[in-house]
Amino acid sequence: MKSWESYVRKVVPYTPGEQPKKTKMIKLNTNENPYPPAPGVERVIKDFDVDRLRLYPDPAVSALVNELAAYHGLKPEQVFVGVGSDDVLAMCFLTFFNSEKPILFPDITYSFYDVWADMLRIPYETKPLDADFNISIEDYMTENGGVIFPNPNAPTGVELGQREIETLLKYNSNVIVIVDEAYVDFGAETALPLLEKYDNLIVVRTFSKSRSMAGSRIGYAMASEKIIKYLNDVKYSFNSYTMDQLSIAVGVESVKDNGYFEETLHKIIATRERTKEALAGLGFSFRDSKSNFIFATHESCPAKELFEALKKEDIYVRYFAKPRIDNYLRITIGTDEEMDRFLEFVRRYLGR
Amino acid sequence: MKSWESYVRKVVPYTPGEQPKKTKMIKLNTNENPYPPAPGVERVIKDFDVDRLRLYPDPAVSALVNELAAYHGLKPEQVFVGVGSDDVLAMCFLTFFNSEKPILFPDITYSFYDVWADMLRIPYETKPLDADFNISIEDYMTENGGVIFPNPNAPTGVELGQREIETLLKYNSNVIVIVDEAYVDFGAETALPLLEKYDNLIVVRTFSKSRSMAGSRIGYAMASEKIIKYLNDVKYSFNSYTMDQLSIAVGVESVKDNGYFEETLHKIIATRERTKEALAGLGFSFRDSKSNFIFATHESCPAKELFEALKKEDIYVRYFAKPRIDNYLRITIGTDEEMDRFLEFVRRYLGR
Repeated sequence: MKSWESYVRKVVPYTPGEQPKKTKMIKLNTNENPYPPAPGVERVIKDFDVDRLRLYPDPAVSALVNELAAYHGLKPEQVFVGVGSDDVLAMCFLTFFNSEKPILFPDITYSFYDVWADMLRIPYETKPLDADFNISIEDYMTENGGVIFPNPNAPTGVELGQREIETLLKYNSNVIVIVDEAYVDFGAETALPLLEKYDNLIVVRTFSKSRSMAGSRIGYAMASEKIIKYLNDVKYSFNSYTMDQLSIAVGVESVKDNGYFEETLHKIIATRERTKEALAGLGFSFRDSKSNFIFATHESCPAKELFEALKKEDIYVRYFAKPRIDNYLRITIGTDEEMDRFLEFVRRYLGR
Repeated sequence: MKSWESYVRKVVPYTPGEQPKKTKMIKLNTNENPYPPAPGVERVIKDFDVDRLRLYPDPAVSALVNELAAYHGLKPEQVFVGVGSDDVLAMCFLTFFNSEKPILFPDITYSFYDVWADMLRIPYETKPLDADFNISIEDYMTENGGVIFPNPNAPTGVELGQREIETLLKYNSNVIVIVDEAYVDFGAETALPLLEKYDNLIVVRTFSKSRSMAGSRIGYAMASEKIIKYLNDVKYSFNSYTMDQLSIAVGVESVKDNGYFEETLHKIIATRERTKEALAGLGFSFRDSKSNFIFATHESCPAKELFEALKKEDIYVRYFAKPRIDNYLRITIGTDEEMDRFLEFVRRYLGR
């Protein structure tokens, strides 16, 4: 080993879901949206003045920040945008989780939390979900350096109620509490109204799921002005210009078209509910998902076996080889046609 | 102060150059390219299949990595891409500068180096440029935790020769040495050939200056396979999907069109040389710049005064209120017409 190697920050990197490059596949493995972005997005791209690319973008990303603030009824000073919610969350970890006390998050949750903590050398403790995959809020009512959880949780899809989130916030007024609402648009209740009362709350959203724009890398945080100021200071110390001109332009356009947004959400929710019924009829069980995926286990067929069988048919779902969830599949909600083909194969495979 | 505030990472953020939103201005303050991106970039944007935005980009950014590797005659495993060279450099600091010994860089240099070091709590020492703004390589031949400098240096435009860089690399084989080549395409010599011999060298480039794409946020690093592997591991632990679909597509197209790239460079270099002559004739002095800017001081007119006078005319240049350089202006090379208008005003202002 070269001596410079002893000073390398060695990490166990996050493993993203497979991104196979096949054209004829059914991709239900990374919670992407099956519908295209708002129609105006195409127009914005076609009309884009390419000469603008030679200029740095607005470092404050005011166009997008203002649009999001207006949409959510907040001040622009309460909104922070970044390169996907992963960028936003990583900046939150870097900015706020500097205590010697451990930050807390569920044992079964978004698999990036422990990766960020390890990389940034932040002490952490995981708190087990109960047998039904619920977060037990008492677990988080103990001395800590901060709290983070997705709501609905990933990859379980289970929602934590607003009243419980408020209890948790009240107890944890001395630390930052992050509610990662990547999937909230698909029918769960948002923690946003709590921002008025709790200046230690951060609510994080993404354009990757409900807005059909995983390829544009846009995420954002909403919080008190104080929190957003601290976040921006660190962001400006890391990379002043993160959002590129085209992403800003398409992001603004997406927020403007609320009609299309709602329409897409309703379609996905309807398909999800129909898929739940079909899966239950095939012997699967799952908690009631409020997201764009279903986290299901089968009464007799091992998850890994079904995962491999689906893959051979070019149907991709997500399997996590992790304790407690290694007999589950996370199935993203696609179009009705995609779900029909998925269900048809599963029915055949199970011999029903 | 709320108790959570005591755990905030408090920083003095980098101050980017002004980005005034006026339409009729001459913008010579942030080293942007006055010419548009390669013509093919416009076509790629117009032809872009908007449906692709709903899918996550390729986390390995293989299309762009392969194109850059082929262009530079390297293996794809030797190339790392990021959201502008600031993202690439921040990742390098995070990954490699974890020694207790100080990293070294010039006292007059890119103003982000000390910001990153402060934010990431990396000890550092600055080494003074000599009176003519040269880097004295002996200063860097002392025990340290790493070395970084731009070549040509910013904001001076002064080049360090390849032989001296090699001497520096030989001495510092135990640490990572980063040569930040943001401006190298404008006529300086690259350190790339040294990659074959030194596995501790990282060469960083950006699309923001020579490729007219500051608005697309693309930067990259070239190094040994070992270094790139470590960098990717940390990147995947921070944000797996940083480059958005559109940026990747336009980046690939830019690299493909070498004819246009060379043509643009030649135009800027010609304008720079002409501007040097004119400035010298007006009583300015400056080191021989190998970049797309000239760092100049006037024999009688204070830099700050001229900076303010230019601003009133909507001509923006960059002024740094910092020791040793507070009587200098950094003037980006624009089009011939822009430089003529700039020079005309200066001539008038100085009463020549």
